[in-house]
Amino acid sequence: MSETDADTQTRAWWTTSIIDMEPGRIAFRGENITDLIGNTSFAKMIWFMVAGTKPTPVQTSLLDAALVAGVDHGPQAPSIAAARMAATCGVGLNNAMATGVNMLGDVHGGAGEQCAELYYDIAARMDQGHGLDAATQAGLDAWRAEYGKIVSGFGHRFHKPTDPRAPRLLGLVREGVASGEVTGRFADIGEAVQARLSEERGGRALAMNIDGATAVIFCELGLPAPLSRGLFCLSRSVGILAHAWEQMGEGRRNKGPMPPALLPLYKPQAGEG
Amino acid sequence: MSETDADTQTRAWWTTSIIDMEPGRIAFRGENITDLIGNTSFAKMIWFMVAGTKPTPVQTSLLDAALVAGVDHGPQAPSIAAARMAATCGVGLNNAMATGVNMLGDVHGGAGEQCAELYYDIAARMDQGHGLDAATQAGLDAWRAEYGKIVSGFGHRFHKPTDPRAPRLLGLVREGVASGEVTGRFADIGEAVQARLSEERGGRALAMNIDGATAVIFCELGLPAPLSRGLFCLSRSVGILAHAWEQMGEGRRNKGPMPPALLPLYKPQAGEG
Amino acid sequence: MSETDADTQTRAWWTTSIIDMEPGRIAFRGENITDLIGNTSFAKMIWFMVAGTKPTPVQTSLLDAALVAGVDHGPQAPSIAAARMAATCGVGLNNAMATGVNMLGDVHGGAGEQCAELYYDIAARMDQGHGLDAATQAGLDAWRAEYGKIVSGFGHRFHKPTDPRAPRLLGLVREGVASGEVTGRFADIGEAVQARLSEERGGRALAMNIDGATAVIFCELGLPAPLSRGLFCLSRSVGILAHAWEQMGEGRRNKGPMPPALLPLYKPQAGEG
Amino acid sequence: MSETDADTQTRAWWTTSIIDMEPGRIAFRGENITDLIGNTSFAKMIWFMVAGTKPTPVQTSLLDAALVAGVDHGPQAPSIAAARMAATCGVGLNNAMATGVNMLGDVHGGAGEQCAELYYDIAARMDQGHGLDAATQAGLDAWRAEYGKIVSGFGHRFHKPTDPRAPRLLGLVREGVASGEVTGRFADIGEAVQARLSEERGGRALAMNIDGATAVIFCELGLPAPLSRGLFCLSRSVGILAHAWEQMGEGRRNKGPMPPALLPLYKPQAGEG
Repeated sequence: MSETDADTQTRAWWTTSIIDMEPGRIAFRGENITDLIGNTSFAKMIWFMVAGTKPTPVQTSLLDAALVAGVDHGPQAPSIAAARMAATCGVGLNNAMATGVNMLGDVHGGAGEQCAELYYDIAARMDQGHGLDAATQAGLDAWRAEYGKIVSGFGHRFHKPTDPRAPRLLGLVREGVASGEVTGRFADIGEAVQARLSEERGGRALAMNIDGATAVIFCELGLPAPLSRGLFCLSRSVGILAHAWEQMGEGRRNKGPMPPALLPLYKPQAGEG
Repeated sequence: MSETDADTQTRAWWTTSIIDMEPGRIAFRGENITDLIGNTSFAKMIWFMVAGTKPTPVQTSLLDAALVAGVDHGPQAPSIAAARMAATCGVGLNNAMATGVNMLGDVHGGAGEQCAELYYDIAARMDQGHGLDAATQAGLDAWRAEYGKIVSGFGHRFHKPTDPRAPRLLGLVREGVASGEVTGRFADIGEAVQARLSEERGGRALAMNIDGATAVIFCELGLPAPLSRGLFCLSRSVGILAHAWEQMGEGRRNKGPMPPALLPLYKPQAGEG
Repeated sequence: MSETDADTQTRAWWTTSIIDMEPGRIAFRGENITDLIGNTSFAKMIWFMVAGTKPTPVQTSLLDAALVAGVDHGPQAPSIAAARMAATCGVGLNNAMATGVNMLGDVHGGAGEQCAELYYDIAARMDQGHGLDAATQAGLDAWRAEYGKIVSGFGHRFHKPTDPRAPRLLGLVREGVASGEVTGRFADIGEAVQARLSEERGGRALAMNIDGATAVIFCELGLPAPLSRGLFCLSRSVGILAHAWEQMGEGRRNKGPMPPALLPLYKPQAGEG
Repeated sequence: MSETDADTQTRAWWTTSIIDMEPGRIAFRGENITDLIGNTSFAKMIWFMVAGTKPTPVQTSLLDAALVAGVDHGPQAPSIAAARMAATCGVGLNNAMATGVNMLGDVHGGAGEQCAELYYDIAARMDQGHGLDAATQAGLDAWRAEYGKIVSGFGHRFHKPTDPRAPRLLGLVREGVASGEVTGRFADIGEAVQARLSEERGGRALAMNIDGATAVIFCELGLPAPLSRGLFCLSRSVGILAHAWEQMGEGRRNKGPMPPALLPLYKPQAGEG
């Protein structure tokens, strides 16, 4: 079939810079897949696909660390619970995974994105000449004007006063600074935010949670804030898969949220007889 | 709150072997997350989470290779197209990703699972004393009796006669055999299936596609067949994210499947006026 | 833009018999939308869109009844629980609804489809001259050979020995028979299956559940078995929406499956330290 | 099992005012399901489930009309295209439906919600004593300050200058005013917004689209703005189902967005070799 202008217009509707193909050849962003397979770790490939550049060794390690850190927080997390329930309803493993990922919204998985916005804003204020403390205070004020009082990335219902993932991730950033491949400035900013929020509570320490800590890493890596959510989804997909798979092995059908002997309480609406 | 038997029954409803937590501590399958972060690549963590064991170096490399190989096949793939369209509809990046993963069903992403079943069945027949050719023929016959004539993992609409990913992946398996960490028997089985199917077509070579090639790897790694689909979903999630993200950058709203100037053809049903 | 053959080929890729449009005009299956709006109830429109014909008044009433009967079975149902959890995660109401509908799989929402297959098969056996009892027994045997011992559409964990929806729906079918618009033969078949299954249990009555009862109606209406699942999804979408909406009103964030004070039990895998 | 306080706490976690059950009995908002089945149309049941009250006859008719009007806009709509593609990927009909509904986000299906907010805000300004024109202008200004220049519910890429669904729906509202069950004030408001927006374009008429017209109805019915999106999802689910079902009948596998002979264009990123 010889190509017409109309064909080109249709093909142009789906233009991409990510992948190029002809029979027997697949290239991602200009590199043959046969050169990538076997020479590229999964984390490095993730970076290359979403950001279009190649990470340095320290950057790859930090991305690996962030992806490992976020894989799971157990069946109390709604995304994990839903994926486990889906796995008992007679759908495919892919559908169970999609069920979980679909729930990583602004509140459940999007917190990292909002936190990265805060960090980048504080950094921009420092670039304009403000000190860390002043920039942190101004950044927090601006962020809260948009998103409200509770700062995404800080505080944990369960892990008090420390979410164990945060100091470990920030430690890795500090170690990486010597290599010159990351600067550590976002580790400073993250800790300044944490310190400021703890001060507001009269000095009771407030945890930097997984969203706040991975946002430090994603900012150190120079990745755009909205990608934080996407990368978190890749990471959490692992836990979602592991739990859906474990659940499938139990052979249960139509698993509800609590033991079948317990029924939800019924509370008549105001005004009902 | 002191724990009652009723509480224990409710907690037992959500029993898991994957994760254990107390305030300030998270452990996956008995290992502290702080020991995993920084010491474990993402691919290795994926294996640990879903299979519950630690892979050897060659096993990790092969898993990395399979995960890299499957990341994307462009916007002609329905899952990628749908994710790109979703990204223009005013939903979160997680929702766009879930839209794509949800479509990796029995036909689109489940082929690897069915192919792994075939390979394991052929291997089991060989364990019972049959030779490779006889076991391949018997395995193919049994598989087709259940799933139909088209053998999952072989043939590609576009990459003819060779899908470039397959020989690269099988080459890595062959290289790994020297280490003793994999045996190469599933590379043999995969190639025997391919040869047999090409023979059936009068010698016209039939490609081993990405599902057939990654199934070789997953079988070499000893992973259960149904996990093939889950691992493929993790891999393809990367391409889904990359494409959704690229699409978001274009700022389009409600992207349809073809340029807006083109409308679907209307064909009245038989019997309509 | 004048239309080329290439354009036509692209447009043909999306050919449909459902909808036809030009600027200022929309027609469904040959009828102008302006004639349908205001003259067609929602249930009647559902039938017209999916089946392509217009139902009689009794048929419309029975479809209404089946759609009303299936709207909800409370938060113990995994689809409802997942939708409520999703509604607290910072996603749109549409995403919460999709989360629930996605879980109405072979076990949770597809039972009606399998049950309709059984009923149609029994009817076909009767058309070949077998009596109701013989056809029922033969149909059950054939069905179980494919799907296993537990017959979809019968038995209810909670509603024993009677699911109140079933006798009400079958009563409406019986009432409709007088009109000549339905025959009642599938009500007979459904009750014969129920009686046979109860006999197998030594006479302990086994409930016909919502899937079994709505399948009677869908068969009376002559709708293809796989549509049962789709129509059930439309019906249950109402409950999913109602619950997601109720949950949104509570203002909770990241609702898990049980009260936050309760953590899932951790059970080490066999072999772990 | 006798109930403990712990059990009650767990049950309370899933408290609802929608459904109440005991073995053999199901009640929605205080009414037995057996009284609802056979006496309640699907549209009326939808209202009862989501709003908790019973609609009058004119209200029911208007809800029916809005639900009928929104069922479908063909495969150019991303939600319909995605559902059709999903139906070819080896997933259940429920998964195909969820794929479509999941895409009815802020831009694709949420426009009605934003438009209802505008209408309610204009009405509130009129309640404070402003005339229709002044309230419309002030409402538009406030709305655009939040959502941007393009006013949800107005304008249509394809139906110019009139979306045929809008005048039909508004005509039904006008007819209903005589009954006293609706007031018609939101029809006035909708038309005032349309007139104002057309004026801004130098008098070129701007269509009120399906979102703008159904928002008139939902406001006339007194339903909260966010429910607009949920009700639209119920309506569009019908078209999604009809298209997924039609597609399944074609037997295609892995349908992409354009004919397989056409490949997406590849455009190297700036800076790539």
